[in-house]
Formats: sequence, C-alpha cells, structure tokens
Amino acid sequence: MNIKITGHGHYIPKTIETAQEVSQKINKTEDWIISRTGVKNRRISDIDVDQMGALAAKDALDNSSPPDLIINASGVPKQTIPDTSVFIQKALGLSGIPSFSVHSTCLSFLTAFHTASSLIASEQYKKILIVSSDRGSIGRNFNEPESAALLGDAAAAVVLESDQNSEVLSYQMETWPEGSTFTQVKGGGTYRHPDNPKTIDKDHYFTMSGPQVYKMARKKVYFMIQKILQENNLSPKDIDFVIPHQASNTAIQAYSKFGGFPENKVMNIISEYGNCVSASIPLALSLAIEQNKINPGDLVMMIGTGAGLSVASALIKF
Amino acid sequence: MNIKITGHGHYIPKTIETAQEVSQKINKTEDWIISRTGVKNRRISDIDVDQMGALAAKDALDNSSPPDLIINASGVPKQTIPDTSVFIQKALGLSGIPSFSVHSTCLSFLTAFHTASSLIASEQYKKILIVSSDRGSIGRNFNEPESAALLGDAAAAVVLESDQNSEVLSYQMETWPEGSTFTQVKGGGTYRHPDNPKTIDKDHYFTMSGPQVYKMARKKVYFMIQKILQENNLSPKDIDFVIPHQASNTAIQAYSKFGGFPENKVMNIISEYGNCVSASIPLALSLAIEQNKINPGDLVMMIGTGAGLSVASALIKF
Repeated sequence: MNIKITGHGHYIPKTIETAQEVSQKINKTEDWIISRTGVKNRRISDIDVDQMGALAAKDALDNSSPPDLIINASGVPKQTIPDTSVFIQKALGLSGIPSFSVHSTCLSFLTAFHTASSLIASEQYKKILIVSSDRGSIGRNFNEPESAALLGDAAAAVVLESDQNSEVLSYQMETWPEGSTFTQVKGGGTYRHPDNPKTIDKDHYFTMSGPQVYKMARKKVYFMIQKILQENNLSPKDIDFVIPHQASNTAIQAYSKFGGFPENKVMNIISEYGNCVSASIPLALSLAIEQNKINPGDLVMMIGTGAGLSVASALIKF
Repeated sequence: MNIKITGHGHYIPKTIETAQEVSQKINKTEDWIISRTGVKNRRISDIDVDQMGALAAKDALDNSSPPDLIINASGVPKQTIPDTSVFIQKALGLSGIPSFSVHSTCLSFLTAFHTASSLIASEQYKKILIVSSDRGSIGRNFNEPESAALLGDAAAAVVLESDQNSEVLSYQMETWPEGSTFTQVKGGGTYRHPDNPKTIDKDHYFTMSGPQVYKMARKKVYFMIQKILQENNLSPKDIDFVIPHQASNTAIQAYSKFGGFPENKVMNIISEYGNCVSASIPLALSLAIEQNKINPGDLVMMIGTGAGLSVASALIKF
C-alpha cells in the first residue's frame, strides 16, 4: 500500500512529575522506580484526552486542509458514549467529517495506521488524521507501584495520504487471549459496572502483571520480528530505525538484546515520558522525525505489544 | 469493493421483559411506552457482552474455518482494557488471530463493515468476522423513562469475504459534534472517573434527548439518502430492502414517511427487541436474510444514526 505520513505532531503536557515525587506516592525509592521501569520523569495533563488529542492533531495538520476522516486511536476513552473521536473533532472546530475510534489499547495507533492505510489504498478516503491521546495518570493505582510508576500522559497524531514513493511493506498482528488478564482496567464497561455489587475501587485503575507480560511478549515479539524480516528478505541491519511501544525500559532494550537492532537505532523516550499507552508509538515516531532520526526512503519498523495480549508491527518505507 | 456477507448470525437472550414489566420500573403506563418508543418487548441478557458476541459469532461462522481478523464493533465495552475483541476471541476458543475494536456507538457495525470491506479489498485479510454485542439493559436509567424503555440486549455477527458477484456500491458517514451531548454515557473514561468528585451516579447510565436527536437526525439522514441515490443514479424504488438502525419506532417510520421507502421494504424489529445499540443493524440484517427478505443480487441500504451525532449508510449489492 503506497501510503505516506504527510504530517505528524504531538502534545506533551507541561507538568513534569519526577521519580522522586512518584516515590512518595507509592512508598518506594527513586532508585527502585528507575531500576524497575526506567522512567525518570512523566508528564501529567490537566486537560482531558480530547483537548490533548486536538492539540496534537493541530500540530500534525499544521494549517493544511482538514482531513476527510478522523480516527481516534486511544487506549482509554473520555467517556463511554459518544466515542472520543467526536470530542476531538469538536475541539478541532470541525463538523461533518466522519469520525470513529479504533481500540486495541497500546496498539491502537498501529491498528488505526493499518486500517487507515487500507482505507486510502482502496480509495475510500484521501487524507486521514489519526489521533492517540492517553491520560494514564488518571488510572494509576498507587498500591501497585510498578505500573503506577510507568504511566505518563501524552497525545500524538499523524496525517496519512497516498504517495507513490512511500509504502507500507508489511503489517502483522496477533492476539493471544491467554494473556487477557495480564493487563487490565476492569471497570468502565458492562463487567464491573458501578451498580454491580462485586465492583471494587481498584477495578477503575490500571493493573499489570509486568513479569507475565514480559515473559509472553518477549517470545511473541521475537518470532514476529523474525517472520517480518524473513518475509521481506531483510536482516536487522537493513532496518534503518525501530519505533517500539514504550512499554518499559526492559521491554525496549529487548529489541537490541534479543531483536538484533543496535541501541542507537531503537527510539527510547521512556526515561522522560514513561509509558503513554496508545500515544507512546506515535509520540516516539513524531519525536524521531523531528530529531531527524528518520529520513525519506528509510525502512522503519513500528512494533509493540498491547493488552490482550496482542503483538503488532508495521514495516514502512518512509 | 467486491465484498460478500458469507455468514450471519445472532444471539437473542431468552428472557423477555414486557412493556408492562418496564412500566413498573419507570412509573409510566404500558401505553405510554408503546406509543413513545414502539417497544413492546425487549430481551435481557444474563451473560456478558463477550459471551453474547461469541454465541452470535458461532452462529455466523457456522463451523466454517476461523476468520483471519476479528473486529468487535459494539457500543459499550465489557471493560476498559483490554478491548472486548480479546474476550470474544477467548470465548470462541481461538488464539493468535488479530483482533481489535471499532467504536462509533450505534454505528459501530457500519463503521466496522466499511473498514473490513476496505481491508479485504486491499488484500490485507481474506475472511473477517465482525461482532456487535450490546447489553444496554445494564446502563438503563429508570429516572429517564423514554430511553430506559427503548433499550434491549442482543448480539449479531457477520462474516465478510471477497466475492466478484457482490459489491459495496457506496459508503457515506458524517459526524456532527454539535450533537455530542444529545446521547451520552458520561462515565467509564477519563472525564467522569469514579475518583472525580464531580462524578455522580447517573453518569454511568445512558441518557438521550430523543427530540433533539430526532430533529437533527431526520434532516441529516434525509440528505444522506438523497446524496446516495443521486450519486448512484437510483430512486427509492430501486432499493430492494432497507436495514435501518432501530433507534425508535418514529425514527424507523421516517424512512417511509420522509425517505420514500415502502414500509414493507424497511426492516422493523423494534417492537420485539427494542434499540439494541450497535447490534440493531446486524440483528435486523441477520433476521431479514433468515426470513428471505433479502435475495442474491438485491440492492440493500444499511443506514442509521449514532451518538456524535453521526449518520452513516452502506449501499450493497447482495
């Protein structure tokens, strides 16, 4: 599919919460936080996900013409109904443009990227805006120190259009429901509705079994990388840059340790921003482009894991 | 796009709640309910959305080979994270198949149908399972009689594959955020999180300003019908069958009163099932096929409105 990222942008909240500040909330030391998660600083947003997403979208659109489709690709919605895309469109001051949401937690951006590429390739739309905006700070459970120390707030957006010089070379996704309980927010739906007497406070917070996720994800990601490289007759050195989901510092370093990609070719922003759920991949992508780490013609692999457990990767020629 | 619905199925919960039974909960008469909403009976599910969706999916797959993509296209999730597609896949006993969710409330099925058609047309997947499952009964606010009387539970599913004899002739969607407050469940996300002191009980229930929705939707739907007919050089009599979202009896009757389609060509199941949110359109479709109201080669218009306010329509050659 001949698709080009013709715009990218992000919104990084101004307020920084340091590891030292988080350490007091979770009753652990600063060193414990940094050694376990790799997150020194994370941002805390005082505006909601729709406003954050609209700021990232404005940055990505950069005063160009409005898109003909808006896809919200966030991990957690603003509210149950309507879906968040409506509120992002409203905050952008737009009206009449179709909008909907795509959801696969931390992989929402990749799922939306693939879906949008397909919608453009099949000539259904010409210019699609994808917005990922997550405010994980709202869902932190301070009684679960590791995940509470990981999460940060951010939004990022890209604009996709048709272009004969750029290409989505490969896309893979796998979902393994054996891992469905590893990463959860149990509340917010029909299962643990506030009216259900079984619903407890912590159902409304993020919970993750880091070791279980890592153990399952490392293997699944490894096999996916091998599959993509083989199917495209490539070796790790042919990949110019890797944009991984910022799950944890250990998870990002695994792309070098086990995946065969040199550390300087793997975008790692976790120390400054933490795990920004769905916004991690597009934020890392936007910052990498801004910092000239990606150039036209480069082979870029976007890859990550999400609650499910799911693994996905898009190999693109920039 | 040459796409065929190669499988369809549904799950209708056994428990019937009559207008007489609802009348006691909302302090209105049976006649009031039927004259306002048209809903005599609605079904109440005692299993959750993932189990309901899996039963509909099994009916649609009918022991055929597993799909290579599962899309959950429901209005309200089972829980915030992971997305419901994971739990549907788990309930189906499948593993490794990519799955994600598409959300545009009552239009989720149409959005997923269009997206899936595009993914097949661009040769990304061969066989896609779309599942819409909603348990609106959980979110009923009995202090808001009209919407509480409208909602019912159901799930429906379709299987899409490539086929040269069938076609998606046209797809249109528009989102008008001016109507973003007309239909809401404010809770379940970052906006009215249980930790927010502003959050009140009724934020977790469905709320709808029926008259505002109807006023805006009638015009938008009317213009969309005219646009689709014109663009395809068709008149209402060329459409063999209309599958509308079952928003309310008044809304369904408007397709005949203002849209120009004879009542016997417009699927109306609201009296027996109520408004089943995202499941309304695929349930109406599945029942229409089962009842031989749709035949190969027929021109079928699927159309509806959703919270947003959004309007969408797919014109397909069966």
